Amino acid sequence: MQRGRTEAFSDGVLAIIITIMVLELKVPHGSTFKDLLPTLPAFLSYVLSFIYLGIYWNNHHHMMHTVKYVRGAILWANLHLLFWLSLVPFVTAWMGENHFETQPMAIYGFILLMSGVAYNMLQRTIIKSQGEDSLLAKAVGKDIKGKLSPLLYAIGIASCWISTYIAGALYIAVALMWLIPDKRIEHEVKE
Amino acid sequence: MQRGRTEAFSDGVLAIIITIMVLELKVPHGSTFKDLLPTLPAFLSYVLSFIYLGIYWNNHHHMMHTVKYVRGAILWANLHLLFWLSLVPFVTAWMGENHFETQPMAIYGFILLMSGVAYNMLQRTIIKSQGEDSLLAKAVGKDIKGKLSPLLYAIGIASCWISTYIAGALYIAVALMWLIPDKRIEHEVKE
Amino acid sequence: MQRGRTEAFSDGVLAIIITIMVLELKVPHGSTFKDLLPTLPAFLSYVLSFIYLGIYWNNHHHMMHTVKYVRGAILWANLHLLFWLSLVPFVTAWMGENHFETQPMAIYGFILLMSGVAYNMLQRTIIKSQGEDSLLAKAVGKDIKGKLSPLLYAIGIASCWISTYIAGALYIAVALMWLIPDKRIEHEVKE
Amino acid sequence: MQRGRTEAFSDGVLAIIITIMVLELKVPHGSTFKDLLPTLPAFLSYVLSFIYLGIYWNNHHHMMHTVKYVRGAILWANLHLLFWLSLVPFVTAWMGENHFETQPMAIYGFILLMSGVAYNMLQRTIIKSQGEDSLLAKAVGKDIKGKLSPLLYAIGIASCWISTYIAGALYIAVALMWLIPDKRIEHEVKE
Repeated sequence: MQRGRTEAFSDGVLAIIITIMVLELKVPHGSTFKDLLPTLPAFLSYVLSFIYLGIYWNNHHHMMHTVKYVRGAILWANLHLLFWLSLVPFVTAWMGENHFETQPMAIYGFILLMSGVAYNMLQRTIIKSQGEDSLLAKAVGKDIKGKLSPLLYAIGIASCWISTYIAGALYIAVALMWLIPDKRIEHEVKE
Repeated sequence: MQRGRTEAFSDGVLAIIITIMVLELKVPHGSTFKDLLPTLPAFLSYVLSFIYLGIYWNNHHHMMHTVKYVRGAILWANLHLLFWLSLVPFVTAWMGENHFETQPMAIYGFILLMSGVAYNMLQRTIIKSQGEDSLLAKAVGKDIKGKLSPLLYAIGIASCWISTYIAGALYIAVALMWLIPDKRIEHEVKE
Repeated sequence: MQRGRTEAFSDGVLAIIITIMVLELKVPHGSTFKDLLPTLPAFLSYVLSFIYLGIYWNNHHHMMHTVKYVRGAILWANLHLLFWLSLVPFVTAWMGENHFETQPMAIYGFILLMSGVAYNMLQRTIIKSQGEDSLLAKAVGKDIKGKLSPLLYAIGIASCWISTYIAGALYIAVALMWLIPDKRIEHEVKE
Repeated sequence: MQRGRTEAFSDGVLAIIITIMVLELKVPHGSTFKDLLPTLPAFLSYVLSFIYLGIYWNNHHHMMHTVKYVRGAILWANLHLLFWLSLVPFVTAWMGENHFETQPMAIYGFILLMSGVAYNMLQRTIIKSQGEDSLLAKAVGKDIKGKLSPLLYAIGIASCWISTYIAGALYIAVALMWLIPDKRIEHEVKE
């Protein structure tokens, strides 16, 4: 089975996840800027989740590009990743509605953590199926980012009970870490 | 007519069905883990439906792969399948909201049954259109799973009035039956 | 510009329209079959609209197949069609919620009428762009169905004030007229 | 990385944005035409936003057609554009619900402005990546429309406090400016 439809389906699911989050931004009844203020926390959590889903789509895109045939194991590892990502709108809305309180922020971090774990599992499944001369294994290298992210999420979750600001800073830090392009990629762009 | 757009449309509909179910997970107003508890039944039914839709997408993917030209009969048999699957979010939400009570569980089973029947109808329509040397007919073989599933759903529906646990166990059993890869496929993966 | 992305975008919009209608089926609070009864009118209007959108997708699919290059005029005629179809979920929900009363049924018919008109406009735009040896013009022939449908919709709308049953029968009749395959197509299937 | 999946993902997001706006058209409870009247402002803002998103999809379509390889910078510039466009349903609903009052109309204009700016940024990113013999740079030329639009949006936003009719007229004017095909394109169509 070739990768075309798996990509199309994943694109569809990711496009819907990223877009339906906007439905959780409840339209205020008043008509002044002040009436918009209560939706600010929901908006900020929307921005963070939008960036995260953008990163996932971007990386998913690159990773699947190395796959020729999608076997059952890859297919289910992919659905497993989509499952955790599909919960992002729910935890984004909960975190936004409760103004970044301790427990919603911890759950948000937990979904990020599980998504990261699922992504790593998908990556390992693909590498295993590609055999020794794995394209993906070479591209990923030591995968420092991939190993660091779950650790930072875990620290972020734990720190929710100390200060939600630390947790928030960590969640943003991981996003930035993935946003800033690798030197190798930057190099290519400059050429 | 080639199969490209039928696949794309089916992928789109399946991706949307699998994702909008998350909109039925109502965001709780409180901000503690305890406030999440009431959404647990809805979450569990979401997980089950997510797996079912994943299985359908997976099998649909394989089945359509054997089709070269999509004739009118295949097209409508496909829309018929999508119709029943489109009702999954509704019955998932109803079952979740009512904590797996008798009648919502029976209706959930009924939609699973009708989806299974519609899938079998689509399969037969494709086989008929492929003629004697049908690729799909060979791949499907005796189709024990395909024949067993509707039977198990029917028993599941009836057992709702005896014990919803039996019904739940049967619905999960059918999902597992489809999740566990065939020996032939496993063999391929190991190679 | 080639037709690929126009098809993909139209597929996306049609897939979403057909699926979000299910979100208008409000999940009942009670847990018995009796509690489902009030959603029956909404369900019936969902079924009718699902069939209509299926027909539109099916015909759109065939029609676009004859197009090689999508020029601005075709593109906007296509968006015009999608606009009217995008209102189907709204009028479906209104008609269902009000148990097929006079004015909601008339508005439903009006949206069907406008969709039909928009489809005919798109068809004419494509034929014009293809020049004298138009593939589509030959395929469409005298287009009796295409000319009859708006007439039947208009009679249906007017008849809402006499009897909503007549209107309903006419809306269903038009759907059936499109569902029953042409003799020519049937012939192909039998081969 | 080739442009296929970036187009597919963008198509998906734009298709969903354009369609979920319809979910904000709240179905009235009454069953007469009079009951539809309160949804008229929401409907009008839906029409305007539908046209805007249609224009964006159309132009995005053309622009991406000149791209061969999607580098990181283009990818993120594209996601940035989709981010602002994803807020259109929210501001459309707010503007519609508040009957085109001053501040909702200003915010609506602000989202249009930011979308226009994001589009220009994406355009510049693509031109930069294509080098001196940029196809897009030639196609765009002096890009008078692209430069005029943000200016007109800005004037529109400011004029909300003078008269929302002026603002509305300006928002419609920009849409018309993009709808009316260039002479060059018209020429092609006439051939």
